[in-house]
Order: sequence, then C-alpha cells, then structure tokens
Amino acid sequence: MPHRSRLGILLLDLPPEHHVAGIDFWSGATGQPITPDSTDDDWNSLGVFGGWHVEVQRTGSGTPPRWHVDIETDDIPAEVDRLEALGATRHRDMGSFWQMLDPAGLVFCVVGIQTGEAFERHAVTWP
Amino acid sequence: MPHRSRLGILLLDLPPEHHVAGIDFWSGATGQPITPDSTDDDWNSLGVFGGWHVEVQRTGSGTPPRWHVDIETDDIPAEVDRLEALGATRHRDMGSFWQMLDPAGLVFCVVGIQTGEAFERHAVTWP
Repeated sequence: MPHRSRLGILLLDLPPEHHVAGIDFWSGATGQPITPDSTDDDWNSLGVFGGWHVEVQRTGSGTPPRWHVDIETDDIPAEVDRLEALGATRHRDMGSFWQMLDPAGLVFCVVGIQTGEAFERHAVTWP
Repeated sequence: MPHRSRLGILLLDLPPEHHVAGIDFWSGATGQPITPDSTDDDWNSLGVFGGWHVEVQRTGSGTPPRWHVDIETDDIPAEVDRLEALGATRHRDMGSFWQMLDPAGLVFCVVGIQTGEAFERHAVTWP
C-alpha cells in the first residue's frame, strides 16, 4: 500500500548546560516566542517557519549540541523500511518513533504526522 | 533603519568521504532530484521544502558531518550586530557572508537574501 512522508521538522538538541541560553537566543534571533510543551518540560516549540516546525529539545548532560531533522510519515514501519533500503541504519526503536542514522552517521528520526495541514500539502507519496 | 531577516535555509555539511552517499540518500529520502550549482561543484541544492531551501555542501576532508542553519537578511552587518547583542559570537567574516556561533557553539551563517519570494513572505522586520 502506498504511504507518504515529508521532510519538514527541524530540531535543536541542547544539553542542560546550554538549554536556557539556546532557547533565549533562538527565540530572540527569530522573533518567535517559545512555547513549552504541556506534558514534557524537556520539549519546547519555536513555532512554524514557512511550513517547517522548529523544536528545541533538552538532551542529556554532556551530549553535543546539534541540529537534526525528522521525517514525518503516515506509516512509520513502511518509511523505516524504505529509508533502510536507501542506505540508512536503524539506530533505536523509541516505541512511538524510530531513530535512524543516515549514511554519514547523522541521527534523524522517523515520526508520525506532526505538522497537520502542512503534511497534507507537502508530503510525497511512495508506491 | 529597519532591516529584515528570516530562518529558512538548512544546510547539510558533508566531508568528501560522505558526500556522494549523503547526496544520494537525502535525494532518495525526499524524492527530490539534486541540482548541482553551475559555478561551485562543492554545492548542491536539494530543493525547496514548503518554503525552506535545503542545500548540501561538500566540506573539508575529515570534518564532521552536520546540519546547520542560515539566517538570511537584507542587511548583513545590521543582522550580525543584532545577533551578537543576543549572545551569538562572530566566528569568521567570509566576505559575502558571516559565520557566527550560537551560545551553545553551533555554527550558523548570516547570508544575503537567497529564497526570494519566500523571504518577502516570511521575513521579520527589526526596528
């Protein structure tokens, strides 16, 4: 059965030692207020930028600050299979999503639909 | 005088040892053909994703693969000053653009307008 996916989520991973300064800076840099997640205080949204969702995640102490991307999809197992066939590696099954590694070793996640109407508008259908 | 800026460019930095595999993978993952730059063969465009431009850059041998963002603006010196006041650091004056570091030490660039109509639609005006 066909499924769909879309590259449209950018995440800033910041360890606790950089988290507050990083949030303040990127909020100021973009002029977007930070929206805390109501159920997870490690998670903040910087908002929507021309169809992309930008999020800030508090990661473990001592982990390297980095940007990563998420691919959202209406069928996570099918999308993980598709990306694996293209050369990505399964890294960690997080239950509701997958962490994968691209061929250069960069982490990205395969997640369910997060961006609603933007997903509907921009997603690619895979046969 | 007011100036404008926008977060809307995402770049994948890949050293030569990961460059071809990385381009092939992300092109396949997104279904977008890669467009080489006519004047710079270290530079390829993956295209426009809902208003964001995604580019792949071949970086120096042995450098770490990473994603970084660009902030585009109609006034580079004014935007660099503004971001410095918010806590970023001037890293390298590249002539036509600036490399800066955010408070966590992540590289980002401040560049001229790259996305045309999307810049006009989404840019924020700073007094």
